Amino acid sequence: MTRTLKLTLAYDGTDFCGWQSQVGHRTVQDTLEEAIAKITGKFVRVMSSGRTDAGVHALAQVISFDTESELPAEVIQRALNYELPHDMAALAVEEAPGFHARRDAKRKRYRYVIHDGPVRDVFYRRFSWQLFKRLDIAAMQRVAAALLGKHDFDSFETGGSERESTERTVFDLTVERVTIPKHSLFVGRTAESTSIDEKSVVQIEVESDGFLYNMVRIIAGTLAEVGQGKKPESWVAEVLAARDRRVAGMTAPPQGLFLVQVTY
Amino acid sequence: MTRTLKLTLAYDGTDFCGWQSQVGHRTVQDTLEEAIAKITGKFVRVMSSGRTDAGVHALAQVISFDTESELPAEVIQRALNYELPHDMAALAVEEAPGFHARRDAKRKRYRYVIHDGPVRDVFYRRFSWQLFKRLDIAAMQRVAAALLGKHDFDSFETGGSERESTERTVFDLTVERVTIPKHSLFVGRTAESTSIDEKSVVQIEVESDGFLYNMVRIIAGTLAEVGQGKKPESWVAEVLAARDRRVAGMTAPPQGLFLVQVTY
Repeated sequence: MTRTLKLTLAYDGTDFCGWQSQVGHRTVQDTLEEAIAKITGKFVRVMSSGRTDAGVHALAQVISFDTESELPAEVIQRALNYELPHDMAALAVEEAPGFHARRDAKRKRYRYVIHDGPVRDVFYRRFSWQLFKRLDIAAMQRVAAALLGKHDFDSFETGGSERESTERTVFDLTVERVTIPKHSLFVGRTAESTSIDEKSVVQIEVESDGFLYNMVRIIAGTLAEVGQGKKPESWVAEVLAARDRRVAGMTAPPQGLFLVQVTY
Repeated sequence: MTRTLKLTLAYDGTDFCGWQSQVGHRTVQDTLEEAIAKITGKFVRVMSSGRTDAGVHALAQVISFDTESELPAEVIQRALNYELPHDMAALAVEEAPGFHARRDAKRKRYRYVIHDGPVRDVFYRRFSWQLFKRLDIAAMQRVAAALLGKHDFDSFETGGSERESTERTVFDLTVERVTIPKHSLFVGRTAESTSIDEKSVVQIEVESDGFLYNMVRIIAGTLAEVGQGKKPESWVAEVLAARDRRVAGMTAPPQGLFLVQVTY
């Protein structure tokens, strides 16, 4: 008897060549499939909600796979956490008859983290894009509004698309400065109150019914140019209207990107 | 003309064999001295407030060094951030006539971070001790009080001490659960509200006029045994009174330890 399981997986993407299986490279998919084969005695292909690129992280990637194993779901979760390397963690395993992680996904939410302090942060370097100029969040919030709703996001896609349509609906696009609580985690103390006592990052979150290749990273790169004052606010609507990748901002680097949530 | 500079330095200790210079190993001291030599054209020895072990981090280590360079302090800071690898950052450089980072230190403050969620956290694994049983913070807070003040901390030192006295004064010893803000940084979202939506770590902070070898890590290991219910609360006073390393808890692993502040 075959059954279908739904797995929620976190990974630190730094040391992976992305999600997708590749001979001779360390990928999330291959590492997961090897762990499942060890536990169940049989190799199966797994399906994720979508690929992530090299260096991109997942707080809650969703995966489906079929197995003939009769082990209870919670035993499989524990066994996965035993077999998987420390940069992957099985957050949940559930029975999910008929579930397909990619096909059934209705929305996905990504977060892009920018550290804009004057000096690099050694603790966030693997998990953020470090810019050294304080971003104008209010300006970024205003231009983000132009991208909300249903649009042709052709300007925000790398490479020629094989998809029929580059139209997507952005349900939510927020830009906020998150202050890390004083005296907590990676925030130090000094006798004088200096910048060492305070840390903040800028978080861009985008939720959509689907994402084109590099779409979040190009949105982040474009918003950052406005936040740095390199481009006027009116520019973003022009970029959208142009339907041409060459007019948008740079593709922000992968280490700032997190897959946050997949909605089914 | 020689002048003395005070440098505040952050480092991610993961990939260093500790602070102290060692032939054939990557250490914080050697890496810093090489960077200073590149900038000023002359090799000088640097002095830190104290050593940190392999894997231990610093949010604000303090260093003094003499230089004949006439470059302004802020130019040296910028040049250091250019020359140093990405797991080190020069947070501040100031003129400090007569300053000696070790001899002049009056107090030091360390933080020990424990992640006690049911599943390992891939993002905090380099920066915390991961225990898989939720700690009883109230019990840990009560026993921490027994360690406050002036005591002989011989039970909390690894190896035979060459020091004359193992008496130290602990000015502050706090245990608190720090909740990471929802929808921020490394905290994901799920449709259902599961543990993925919430993260917390336990932080132990200790401030003292001086620390014996491994003192904070043995305090953390001892408090954790009480927090896990492995030892009764009355045990900690017995450990202190015994003046014998063998009766205390384990030495907690290095990756949870941060040097937070040095007071002059």
